[in-house]
Amino acid sequence: MTPIPLLATPEDYSLLTDLYQLTMASCYAGEGVADRIASFELFTRRLPANYGYLVAMGLAQAVDYLRNLRFSERHLEALQQTGLFDQAPDGFWQRLKDGAFTGDLWAVPEGTAVFANEPLLRVEAPLWQAQIAETYLLNTLNYQTLVATRAARLRDVAGPAAKLLEFGSRRAFSPQGALWAARAALAAGLDDTSNVLAAVQLGRKPAGTMAHALVMVFAALEGSEDSAFEAFHRYFPGAALLIDTYDTVAAAERLAARVQQGQSQVASVRLDSGNLVALSQAVRSHLPDTKIFASGDLDEYEIARLRAAGAKIDGYGLGTKLVTGDPVNGVYKLVEIDGIAVMKESSGKVTLPGRKQIFRRHEQGRAVGDRLGLMTDTPAPDEQPLLELVIKQGEVVRGEEKLAAIAARTAASVASLPDAVRQIEQPTDYSVDLSDALVDLAARTRRSVAPPQL
Amino acid sequence: MTPIPLLATPEDYSLLTDLYQLTMASCYAGEGVADRIASFELFTRRLPANYGYLVAMGLAQAVDYLRNLRFSERHLEALQQTGLFDQAPDGFWQRLKDGAFTGDLWAVPEGTAVFANEPLLRVEAPLWQAQIAETYLLNTLNYQTLVATRAARLRDVAGPAAKLLEFGSRRAFSPQGALWAARAALAAGLDDTSNVLAAVQLGRKPAGTMAHALVMVFAALEGSEDSAFEAFHRYFPGAALLIDTYDTVAAAERLAARVQQGQSQVASVRLDSGNLVALSQAVRSHLPDTKIFASGDLDEYEIARLRAAGAKIDGYGLGTKLVTGDPVNGVYKLVEIDGIAVMKESSGKVTLPGRKQIFRRHEQGRAVGDRLGLMTDTPAPDEQPLLELVIKQGEVVRGEEKLAAIAARTAASVASLPDAVRQIEQPTDYSVDLSDALVDLAARTRRSVAPPQL
Repeated sequence: MTPIPLLATPEDYSLLTDLYQLTMASCYAGEGVADRIASFELFTRRLPANYGYLVAMGLAQAVDYLRNLRFSERHLEALQQTGLFDQAPDGFWQRLKDGAFTGDLWAVPEGTAVFANEPLLRVEAPLWQAQIAETYLLNTLNYQTLVATRAARLRDVAGPAAKLLEFGSRRAFSPQGALWAARAALAAGLDDTSNVLAAVQLGRKPAGTMAHALVMVFAALEGSEDSAFEAFHRYFPGAALLIDTYDTVAAAERLAARVQQGQSQVASVRLDSGNLVALSQAVRSHLPDTKIFASGDLDEYEIARLRAAGAKIDGYGLGTKLVTGDPVNGVYKLVEIDGIAVMKESSGKVTLPGRKQIFRRHEQGRAVGDRLGLMTDTPAPDEQPLLELVIKQGEVVRGEEKLAAIAARTAASVASLPDAVRQIEQPTDYSVDLSDALVDLAARTRRSVAPPQL
Repeated sequence: MTPIPLLATPEDYSLLTDLYQLTMASCYAGEGVADRIASFELFTRRLPANYGYLVAMGLAQAVDYLRNLRFSERHLEALQQTGLFDQAPDGFWQRLKDGAFTGDLWAVPEGTAVFANEPLLRVEAPLWQAQIAETYLLNTLNYQTLVATRAARLRDVAGPAAKLLEFGSRRAFSPQGALWAARAALAAGLDDTSNVLAAVQLGRKPAGTMAHALVMVFAALEGSEDSAFEAFHRYFPGAALLIDTYDTVAAAERLAARVQQGQSQVASVRLDSGNLVALSQAVRSHLPDTKIFASGDLDEYEIARLRAAGAKIDGYGLGTKLVTGDPVNGVYKLVEIDGIAVMKESSGKVTLPGRKQIFRRHEQGRAVGDRLGLMTDTPAPDEQPLLELVIKQGEVVRGEEKLAAIAARTAASVASLPDAVRQIEQPTDYSVDLSDALVDLAARTRRSVAPPQL
């Protein structure tokens, strides 16, 4: 394999896993338990600080992964060459050779609000397959869920009229991170992305303004900032002008004079530095019909502050604080093996046993509480089960959704939550009860004497 | 293009850019300035909180990108279909068709410690090429530099004897993010990665232990935790056993009894929860010859705390806090166009003009201070210029380095810094002066009356 670029194309998905998944699969094969049906659930133990909910995202890429999971001769050779598998049983190599994902996948649809301890997905498959899928599934769901949740919070704070643009590619953690961030952002409330490849791959039109470099080029070669604005508008007449390279208010005044003389139109401008409240008010006073975009380390907290302070801003470019930062720490835990419910009892990391379903109760269109129960629990009339069958015996049975459909679900799912749960600071906990059957199963499954502390 | 998976393979690198890079390139072509030679430098305005230095990383991927930069017919069609380029001049399309990177690249070698305002690289190329490269180059350098810096700090705190393992794939921001994190971590001080694909692509042996799932499987099917340990050791006799699934100390006691009876050997164990100080001491007392690994949201601060508290830990698994979190906020700024030095003067975001060189002064093998000057400055006898020519007129003139060589440079570069600069909390600022020629150029370049505030 070529050493660079460091990529995981679909044909290499199988090796994009932690080593221990493969050593454990090898052990399972040798001990005759590799094909027992195992159920693993993916969930977060707690929500990130100040988050009242998560928006599930990344299922499409999870499905893509499971569909493409294959081990080629080249992969097998690479594993053999590590020297780590010299005592691996034949059954291990044979399974990798024959292998493909033959199990079931249950998941909440992308764009669904979920809470701590609620499974975003469950894999029910031969143990060795379910085991090796852990790393990639977590990678996929963790990151897109993070970005989607932030996008939903941004939309909630900025209001439906604000233009929200994803500008994070230069700060995202790898090129593919930039693409996945763009997808999750557009699927959960943002309007457009500046990433051309992401837009093309997602069937969307990319968006953007102009950079300081262009202003500096024309200022250096032609002597004025205005020559940059005029040049850019010759090819992109409606484009937003970046007016903070030298003196923001002076630039706005000069543009206003040209507009009044009928010499040009200024559909929109962007501010990327300085006091955005005062500057946006000043720009609005000079250019009352011009849309004002703001950028520069913005997040939902800063947008709320700007709005409260009376800033005159019509749209926001979101980058660093949308696509980097503290992660969603999803985990993927065995809950049942061969029909036997299991639970982990490590200090502070206890898990709930059994194959679960989320039952969401609605009253007058609002979500009022969830019951986390077992798949075998019967939903009450006002309860909606959230986990759906997506892959059945290796075959995809729930088609991929369009981004617009996911975005609509996100908006509806978040809008249905209690206002106090949607707050971006100190949100109230949404009510999630455990079903009687789940509590009972946990009590019967527990090995240690101490009661489980979630 | 297929909608998923969201990937940027080398043939699509050209579109992995922000839209405005292409609209600006279009404007440059129309205005007859696209081929003027532009110099852009990539640097950070300030170091992340509590970071005394950065370790430059990601150059290999930057070179790979520049070498592969091409626009295919498919890309041109995709751009045309956006409808955004209807007024773009012919010269724009012609340049994309003919295009390849024909400029120069200067960069500090990977593994070099750098400081605020010091360029990690400079592109000198026809303006349109240098412009469109911005997004990808920042993406590449920002993330790998972040991970490399953390890896170097971890090594510094843990000491040369500790085993440091990269376990972050499940939390990394996209599959490619996982691969790039593994590369940067291994190139800057960590020993191994658990990511099998990363290890294979980097020519390394992957590393790992075992997961709770295996313990739970055998506990459920065969009735005991010990059956899991025995099963795993049948295929991987030296593998670390994960002993915290139920009761850590009880598991260690049982293993110790088997060791004393000569029934098994326990080369190493892993602890993933609970009080790591007390547990590691207890495990060491029962299993004095067993290596103890720890994992679970560890970072350099926690390792320092564990060591100070007397924990008995021989190795650490590093994941979430190595590969996610707040970014390095590198920027890429025009410093010269057509021989004319330029600078940005936006509030709080002033840049230094001109093509720069970093001169590092050493005394008795220790770095004692840098002078940030112009390429035309003459180095003093005790000064080492850090930026080297990597690509000359589109041809790579400095070969790719092996990871081991980069790791050696990282270790030496960090070791040469003053101890107070290497501290992980409240490090002292390393001394970076501006050369007289640079100060003079900035004064002459400034357009506004106010003095620049860096």
